[in-house]
Amino acid sequence: MADKISNYEALTVDTMAGRLGSIESITDILGTNSSKWTSEEMGDGNLNLVFIVKSDQGSVIVKQALPYVRLVGDSWPLPLKRAFFEYHALIRQAERDPGTVPEIYHFDGAQAIIVMQFFTPHIILRHSLMAGTKHDGLAKTLGQFCARTLFRGSDLSMDAAKRKADVALFVDNVALCDITETLVFSDPYFDAERNHHTPQLDQLVVELRADIDLKVEAQHLKSKFCNNAETMLHGDFHTGSVMVSESETKVIDPEFVLYGPIGFDIGMLLGNFWMAYFAQPGHAIAEGARDDYQNWILGVVDDVWAEFSSEFSRLWREERTGILYEKSLFEDQGHTLASEQALAHRLQDIWQDTLGFAGVEMIRRTLSLAHIAENDSIENEELRADCEARGLKLGRQLVVNRSRMNAMATVNDLARTIAKEAK
Amino acid sequence: MADKISNYEALTVDTMAGRLGSIESITDILGTNSSKWTSEEMGDGNLNLVFIVKSDQGSVIVKQALPYVRLVGDSWPLPLKRAFFEYHALIRQAERDPGTVPEIYHFDGAQAIIVMQFFTPHIILRHSLMAGTKHDGLAKTLGQFCARTLFRGSDLSMDAAKRKADVALFVDNVALCDITETLVFSDPYFDAERNHHTPQLDQLVVELRADIDLKVEAQHLKSKFCNNAETMLHGDFHTGSVMVSESETKVIDPEFVLYGPIGFDIGMLLGNFWMAYFAQPGHAIAEGARDDYQNWILGVVDDVWAEFSSEFSRLWREERTGILYEKSLFEDQGHTLASEQALAHRLQDIWQDTLGFAGVEMIRRTLSLAHIAENDSIENEELRADCEARGLKLGRQLVVNRSRMNAMATVNDLARTIAKEAK
Repeated sequence: MADKISNYEALTVDTMAGRLGSIESITDILGTNSSKWTSEEMGDGNLNLVFIVKSDQGSVIVKQALPYVRLVGDSWPLPLKRAFFEYHALIRQAERDPGTVPEIYHFDGAQAIIVMQFFTPHIILRHSLMAGTKHDGLAKTLGQFCARTLFRGSDLSMDAAKRKADVALFVDNVALCDITETLVFSDPYFDAERNHHTPQLDQLVVELRADIDLKVEAQHLKSKFCNNAETMLHGDFHTGSVMVSESETKVIDPEFVLYGPIGFDIGMLLGNFWMAYFAQPGHAIAEGARDDYQNWILGVVDDVWAEFSSEFSRLWREERTGILYEKSLFEDQGHTLASEQALAHRLQDIWQDTLGFAGVEMIRRTLSLAHIAENDSIENEELRADCEARGLKLGRQLVVNRSRMNAMATVNDLARTIAKEAK
Repeated sequence: MADKISNYEALTVDTMAGRLGSIESITDILGTNSSKWTSEEMGDGNLNLVFIVKSDQGSVIVKQALPYVRLVGDSWPLPLKRAFFEYHALIRQAERDPGTVPEIYHFDGAQAIIVMQFFTPHIILRHSLMAGTKHDGLAKTLGQFCARTLFRGSDLSMDAAKRKADVALFVDNVALCDITETLVFSDPYFDAERNHHTPQLDQLVVELRADIDLKVEAQHLKSKFCNNAETMLHGDFHTGSVMVSESETKVIDPEFVLYGPIGFDIGMLLGNFWMAYFAQPGHAIAEGARDDYQNWILGVVDDVWAEFSSEFSRLWREERTGILYEKSLFEDQGHTLASEQALAHRLQDIWQDTLGFAGVEMIRRTLSLAHIAENDSIENEELRADCEARGLKLGRQLVVNRSRMNAMATVNDLARTIAKEAK
């Protein structure tokens, strides 16, 4: 595969300085003495090469797509163009929620390279959730990021012709969407080749795969994911795509970008928080040692949704400049109440979608190809299976009963009940 | 506007033979002796030039886009590219429901010309509905056309990458979508510049524009129209886009093509039938003279939906080869019942969308720019306003209460009640 792509060459730590050392936007950060640069490959990406390149002046991240899925190898080719989509997603996210995504210093489409801001001393949120570390301001940044990028990328805000041009641009991200369509929405629901799960879950997996209501609802959610092009999504917004320091929260890696339903990003994020919640017993040094941290996670979930809905509502009232629910029809006619009624309906729809997408994400991360580190790192298989089973049970409830759950307190209470009861 | 488009030249009856006389796919129909061809401009299009070109061997339709809206003039420019979209829609419709749309003999994108099959002795269905003429097989062809084109253009059937390429292709049809977005979904709900209505409706129009539930629901439907890219729609599927003879039903003019919600085409069609139903008293030679014909129209409505749902269900069971509701998840697991459950849910969603889109179409054709000939041709303004008011009342009920109407018999009964009561 690789040798068919003209001129493309994978970067190495040895070729880094030679290949990037004369690009001004990079030497502005690292200095022109590229012989002094040091490069290190992080090696933890599922799909790409990711290097940290440092000098005594500064540091950058160099991300390069490989022509295949790194996690699997040459046998699963994947287009280099995903770097192009990530680049276009990043510049739009930066416009829509300034300061939350990495600044881009350089983009090379042919080489599938993005050189961007290195967030330090930030770490991946998922690792914090295993370590039991709390972060102030996390929910606020995540909720606002969702509200701002999702609102401002939609027909609620954008010029219609520009949004349509963006739909055309991103709908070509076929290969990465296919991964989501298959691994999230289909594979978990039958005995697909790439699936794997903790053996102690066998009986529960049989039950879930025989659960007709679950399967039908998961497909309804897939249908929304595939066809409901409401806004530009991050597309892979789990806790591994969030970086945190003591005071800052940043969002990275939007290469799965697509136009899709507003609830998808928030749902995937919340699903990952709920899984982290259930995984805590696997990381506690003693029974109950993570009780407080578990409560903190549920508090974050509560706050993410509250921040999202409050910021989304603010944007609805202040920035509704698109072709949907035009102010000329509502506020300009003295019908502010009608605008609020429409907002409430839309938030209710987004809420239900959010729960559903959270549910399929929890099921997928336990039964399909890519699991989460919080569970994978629990060496005791019985204990891991307990944690995973709880996630599956909440996931199932969210997917099937999402239209009958009316507040986050209800869902968090359900999570607490499942955490206590299931064993 | 026109003079900015290099090489484009509008056809005339005098230049027809010179410009098209040496194109083999056309001379195959008309013969090579183009000096004997006769051309006639039909002059009834809102947007385009349409010629019938005949020889002693045969006849063709020559349709050419103008760089502006013909109905309005130069002041409303409109891209020539709509001919490109119509061409691409026609070839897909011909594949998906062979024999229902005109065969294409020649396409010239730069000149925005499509040369295609002339259906004769067919007339526009709308004219039949004014004349009170019945047509056998009408509902069957229309219901099947909807089911086949809408199912086969969706992720229920198509290869996902091909569908996404088609989404990208058609999402560029911005100008024509903008007409629908504005004239159908927004203008009727406030005092927009291009609106006009029969003066006797003034009071009812005030009530409708103060109706908050109606306005909010119309915007929810607009949101679906703009964002829910389920399938390739005809996009302008009213009774003026249908041609009928004694035994045949044909569908023309898909230049408003877009990827949108499955219920849109059927809804627009049914809305036009219901308006034709209410317009009958304006065309009756004596009171009650059109009672039987009115019943026939409601029967057609009933049959269109029945044919659509039966054919859609057949295709669901036999041709579900896309990425949604995959057979590998359902039938292949022995879960045929789950597949039927999913089908029932989807038909219920399409049903509700259909009623909603029918409702906004009825309101739009009475209050916005382009009205229907069935009403416009009623010279007595009082009588015309009565017919139109009935359509507005049913339209309002459909838009606001569509989720609580469970069968076509209910809706047709409501139409009958409104026809009797309103005066």
